[in-house]
Amino acid sequence: MKRILKAAILGATGLVGIEYARMLSEHPYIKPAYLAGKNSVGRPYGEIVRWQTVGQVPKEVRDMEVKPTDPKLMDDVDIIFSPLPQGAAGPVEEQFAKLGFPVISNSPDHRFDPDVPLLIPEVNPHTVSLIDEQKKRRDWKGFIVTTPLCTAQGAAIPLSPIYMNFKMNGAYITTIQSLSGAGYPGIPSLDIVDNILPLGDAYDAKTIKEVTRILGEVKRNIGEPSMQEVSLAATTHRIATIHGHYEVSYVTFKEDTEVSKVREVLDNFRGEPQDLKLPTAPEKPIITMNEDNRPQVYFDRWAGNPPGMSIVVGRLKQINNRTIRMVSLIHNTIRGAAGGGILSAELLKEKGYIE
Amino acid sequence: MKRILKAAILGATGLVGIEYARMLSEHPYIKPAYLAGKNSVGRPYGEIVRWQTVGQVPKEVRDMEVKPTDPKLMDDVDIIFSPLPQGAAGPVEEQFAKLGFPVISNSPDHRFDPDVPLLIPEVNPHTVSLIDEQKKRRDWKGFIVTTPLCTAQGAAIPLSPIYMNFKMNGAYITTIQSLSGAGYPGIPSLDIVDNILPLGDAYDAKTIKEVTRILGEVKRNIGEPSMQEVSLAATTHRIATIHGHYEVSYVTFKEDTEVSKVREVLDNFRGEPQDLKLPTAPEKPIITMNEDNRPQVYFDRWAGNPPGMSIVVGRLKQINNRTIRMVSLIHNTIRGAAGGGILSAELLKEKGYIE
Amino acid sequence: MKRILKAAILGATGLVGIEYARMLSEHPYIKPAYLAGKNSVGRPYGEIVRWQTVGQVPKEVRDMEVKPTDPKLMDDVDIIFSPLPQGAAGPVEEQFAKLGFPVISNSPDHRFDPDVPLLIPEVNPHTVSLIDEQKKRRDWKGFIVTTPLCTAQGAAIPLSPIYMNFKMNGAYITTIQSLSGAGYPGIPSLDIVDNILPLGDAYDAKTIKEVTRILGEVKRNIGEPSMQEVSLAATTHRIATIHGHYEVSYVTFKEDTEVSKVREVLDNFRGEPQDLKLPTAPEKPIITMNEDNRPQVYFDRWAGNPPGMSIVVGRLKQINNRTIRMVSLIHNTIRGAAGGGILSAELLKEKGYIE
Amino acid sequence: MKRILKAAILGATGLVGIEYARMLSEHPYIKPAYLAGKNSVGRPYGEIVRWQTVGQVPKEVRDMEVKPTDPKLMDDVDIIFSPLPQGAAGPVEEQFAKLGFPVISNSPDHRFDPDVPLLIPEVNPHTVSLIDEQKKRRDWKGFIVTTPLCTAQGAAIPLSPIYMNFKMNGAYITTIQSLSGAGYPGIPSLDIVDNILPLGDAYDAKTIKEVTRILGEVKRNIGEPSMQEVSLAATTHRIATIHGHYEVSYVTFKEDTEVSKVREVLDNFRGEPQDLKLPTAPEKPIITMNEDNRPQVYFDRWAGNPPGMSIVVGRLKQINNRTIRMVSLIHNTIRGAAGGGILSAELLKEKGYIE
Repeated sequence: MKRILKAAILGATGLVGIEYARMLSEHPYIKPAYLAGKNSVGRPYGEIVRWQTVGQVPKEVRDMEVKPTDPKLMDDVDIIFSPLPQGAAGPVEEQFAKLGFPVISNSPDHRFDPDVPLLIPEVNPHTVSLIDEQKKRRDWKGFIVTTPLCTAQGAAIPLSPIYMNFKMNGAYITTIQSLSGAGYPGIPSLDIVDNILPLGDAYDAKTIKEVTRILGEVKRNIGEPSMQEVSLAATTHRIATIHGHYEVSYVTFKEDTEVSKVREVLDNFRGEPQDLKLPTAPEKPIITMNEDNRPQVYFDRWAGNPPGMSIVVGRLKQINNRTIRMVSLIHNTIRGAAGGGILSAELLKEKGYIE
Repeated sequence: MKRILKAAILGATGLVGIEYARMLSEHPYIKPAYLAGKNSVGRPYGEIVRWQTVGQVPKEVRDMEVKPTDPKLMDDVDIIFSPLPQGAAGPVEEQFAKLGFPVISNSPDHRFDPDVPLLIPEVNPHTVSLIDEQKKRRDWKGFIVTTPLCTAQGAAIPLSPIYMNFKMNGAYITTIQSLSGAGYPGIPSLDIVDNILPLGDAYDAKTIKEVTRILGEVKRNIGEPSMQEVSLAATTHRIATIHGHYEVSYVTFKEDTEVSKVREVLDNFRGEPQDLKLPTAPEKPIITMNEDNRPQVYFDRWAGNPPGMSIVVGRLKQINNRTIRMVSLIHNTIRGAAGGGILSAELLKEKGYIE
Repeated sequence: MKRILKAAILGATGLVGIEYARMLSEHPYIKPAYLAGKNSVGRPYGEIVRWQTVGQVPKEVRDMEVKPTDPKLMDDVDIIFSPLPQGAAGPVEEQFAKLGFPVISNSPDHRFDPDVPLLIPEVNPHTVSLIDEQKKRRDWKGFIVTTPLCTAQGAAIPLSPIYMNFKMNGAYITTIQSLSGAGYPGIPSLDIVDNILPLGDAYDAKTIKEVTRILGEVKRNIGEPSMQEVSLAATTHRIATIHGHYEVSYVTFKEDTEVSKVREVLDNFRGEPQDLKLPTAPEKPIITMNEDNRPQVYFDRWAGNPPGMSIVVGRLKQINNRTIRMVSLIHNTIRGAAGGGILSAELLKEKGYIE
Repeated sequence: MKRILKAAILGATGLVGIEYARMLSEHPYIKPAYLAGKNSVGRPYGEIVRWQTVGQVPKEVRDMEVKPTDPKLMDDVDIIFSPLPQGAAGPVEEQFAKLGFPVISNSPDHRFDPDVPLLIPEVNPHTVSLIDEQKKRRDWKGFIVTTPLCTAQGAAIPLSPIYMNFKMNGAYITTIQSLSGAGYPGIPSLDIVDNILPLGDAYDAKTIKEVTRILGEVKRNIGEPSMQEVSLAATTHRIATIHGHYEVSYVTFKEDTEVSKVREVLDNFRGEPQDLKLPTAPEKPIITMNEDNRPQVYFDRWAGNPPGMSIVVGRLKQINNRTIRMVSLIHNTIRGAAGGGILSAELLKEKGYIE
């Protein structure tokens, strides 16, 4: 029987924090033990949290007091989940890692440190070995592991098995993303009612940068993020959906490639989490649909088990001999953030990085 | 001074019908003279119409009685605008054309008759000569001219000057369309709140079919709609916007092509309507924007003068040497329907097909 | 141990039907055994249902085939849940009752038959005795019990204990209701984006008529629905929320009445379902909130256990000595329909009407 | 012929500022001459403004440079329109008034100064005489006049003629307000999608406080804001509409009152602006509708001429002998702010306070 791991959730009242609280309340061996916040310290979590997800605040966390983000108060904590916002996250995460805590971060601040994994457990599990280098180089007892941007995961998870199995040339992506990806208060309502909000060049670029690194790691050794051979582009938007990032990709190939074979590869895709039967690993990381009006955000974002951990892929179509169209849908705060973080922790425990 | 033309609007209470009524109320020489409807015959137009557009019902049409769709009552009508729905439109339009009326149709029923123009006045004005063949072959005194699907126009208008000026290879399009494109009652609200609705294979296909024909006509003789050399694909969706179709296109080329030159071509694009100074012709059929968060549906769909007659193109970006990204926004019920119809009528008058 | 009851759900693919399917899949002794539908007969339920609720289609019903609404195929069915639409429901429900089935109806068709209970189990449980009269008068082996309109329940549940305990004079109600209350396809999207849709005189009137009858039954003998002494008014609307009816009531009294006492009465309200510990009875039928920005539809509609079975009441305020303001929020398809139906069935079983 | 008045618009890029810019661009004798802003000083107005209203930025203001809020730069300005936010407005407005400028404020900061009018030109025009006292008491060459909160105007305009003509006892109001009333960025999108946002006790209270003062001034001398005899209550909310505040009022009377007479009084209501034929005065300040599904926000908020200057009242109904139900709809940024401000300026000019 596994030892119970006690988890601290930083930013526990945020949109990703609540999914950590919800999922860990049902986790077999990682328990929510410390809910860190900023503006509501001292208040019972269940009273002050904006529960912008399914169900109600679980009894496991409802009466827990929100506490400050202070390592000195976390003596018995085994693992830190950090969905802190950009800029705020970086120094805090370093502080914790230095003190010996394993830190799983959903924040961008350390994603491109060369000794920090950018981990999707099914896709690039071998990159966890960067931790050894990280601890050594920085003389840390703990470490930082990051998960990619939700948008990047929505593209990278289905593109990885395609890139692995076919001579992929590039992907031209258009995203239609949900509001929760921007946090709270996030997007002003007047930007989104009867409108589409383009996220702009910077957001497009960071999506591509992350997908490029992940694809680069799929086939290769670690630490060679540059990948000239693939041409990626993303045009990113938000609309008035609450959860779920929807992404249309036109994928091009260097040789004739049949859509039926691509579908087969996607259907059969499994990774280490599935082999290891990790508790948060969905049976199928990618679920394909055939109906020509699916996936739909409202109906399909909670796909998989645990709900929201599977990417749904649909609208697979042969555009021409060397181009295939694909739509993917990811639950951005589950698979794209909290769920991805928990699955990462499970993998790290299995591999001995968390004890 | 031009003779006043009296126009009948079929389906005058529909979402395109109201734009005809609004625009013709301000037109210098085409007047709304007959408002045809189905369920509200005998009632004053201003009392029963759902005015889902800007402003209020113009005084020119407010007190007009809605009348039946009956050619016998239209003795003094010079021109028929028909935004009737698919299926209903076909036979009615034939009946009118046979009786000698010029019919401008926004309906799909006759769009692929080989002797019927699929007209965008700036793009393929020479195709109006099909009318001669049409009248002769069918022994009609009148004729039918169609305008393309709003979605197809949103892509075809900017792609046309690109196709004309560069060695274009293909375009991979993703659309995010508004509710008014589906008419009323149209899309159920439970399909669209907190959701994205894929329009499916049939809608994707008809978009591509129309864009293909239009591009084919840009450079060539009339009546050769097949065009194997260009690879087009569309993935179409609706979301909860009221007006305005937003389309992301990745355009590929057979040789290296610079985005700055593409922008220049789009900026300088003019057509016969501009040369002829037709009253409904916008000064620029295509307005380009540079801000990386534009165009936005809410703010840019009414671009141009008359409002809604210009396509807005933005997010122009060099993806790689032979690929360019472009976003276009079209007001679907104006440029994509009623405004396009009125501009077509003006061109036909100028060319002597309407007297 | 209770005998398992096999339930048929008529209209099983509708918005109330899916809540029956979801809730019965977890029910201790009522099992979903027959899913009746119209357009998808022969198809697996999980494949064709629009699952416009939380979670995913439960495994208990996922593979069940949708069957016709035919009593001859329902030999082993013990109970019929009928959320059929108005007009369609009436004759079908009579047919089933005549053949001996207990029918729990969420439809309006029989709500005002003088021998048919309009049942809210916590409020007017004694009205189930109408069943005896019904069976006798109609010579039926089975019977029909109805649940009130969701909107009427949202008002009647909190008004009942107020009416019971204070000299209430009237209530002036304004509702802001969700889309699911109108079924699917229901409200056209163009009626609701950037709009408020008034439901009109007929909807206002039926709400008041039902609340009046229910309040009449709270204190009195059965079968005296007229109640001149209370003045009720409702102004009803829909907006673009998916689930949850929000209702603002100004309640007036014949004598000075303190809001603190009204709150106490609401807090302490319990009914027979709570005394009998019926499985679908929430611990508290009414949950009161104190925050001045609650209840909120998104965050509070799933209140109670089972989720959605408690009404949330907030914004209690003394307007003047004889007027109190109150806001109530009801999950229209759970407490207001399927959940109310299941709770009714549990009460009927307990009282021996279903065996 | 009237002398042209040059106007400065403070906060010219805000949601009320843009309506000032739009309306003054078409005004016969008040011209937009100075556009003051904060973050975009030095930039052309047309380039940086978020034009969240109809049409496009008028050519009269498109190329004007945004300038600082500095009286020293406004030598040739005749009138100041101040839709500055609460807190920021107060001291700035005082500074301008002290220097001799007439200031028309849409801000709450001075609304309850006893010598400052809270002006609705049709309702309490006699209160402009407070200006004399204000200038004298404060030894100012200029002055401040305020307009009420948009929500308060939506109730007060129709209640005023009712209060004037009938023995009104009270009004129980429920509002469903639009997003633009909260400014930009204003309401976070995650508060409003699939939700209703209660505005809370403070907002309810300020609405009532203002309506109370205005009604008090309707019949009486100036400066007696307390009015015990009428019982008012408001429950205020926002939903995802862009413009237009919708308000349901149950109005009670001290004696039997017929709805037909109330309708007549509302229909015939005119004020000084109509008598004086002020350019921004709508022919009818209140337009009544009879259809039981009107007013609707999307279709009726632009009522009147200039558009948005008329309040629409509908759903008039006799609830009981002494209670009448009424729905009113006000365009919050036009009649409720910029339009009300311009109409106030016209009245002040006519009465000699602005020269």
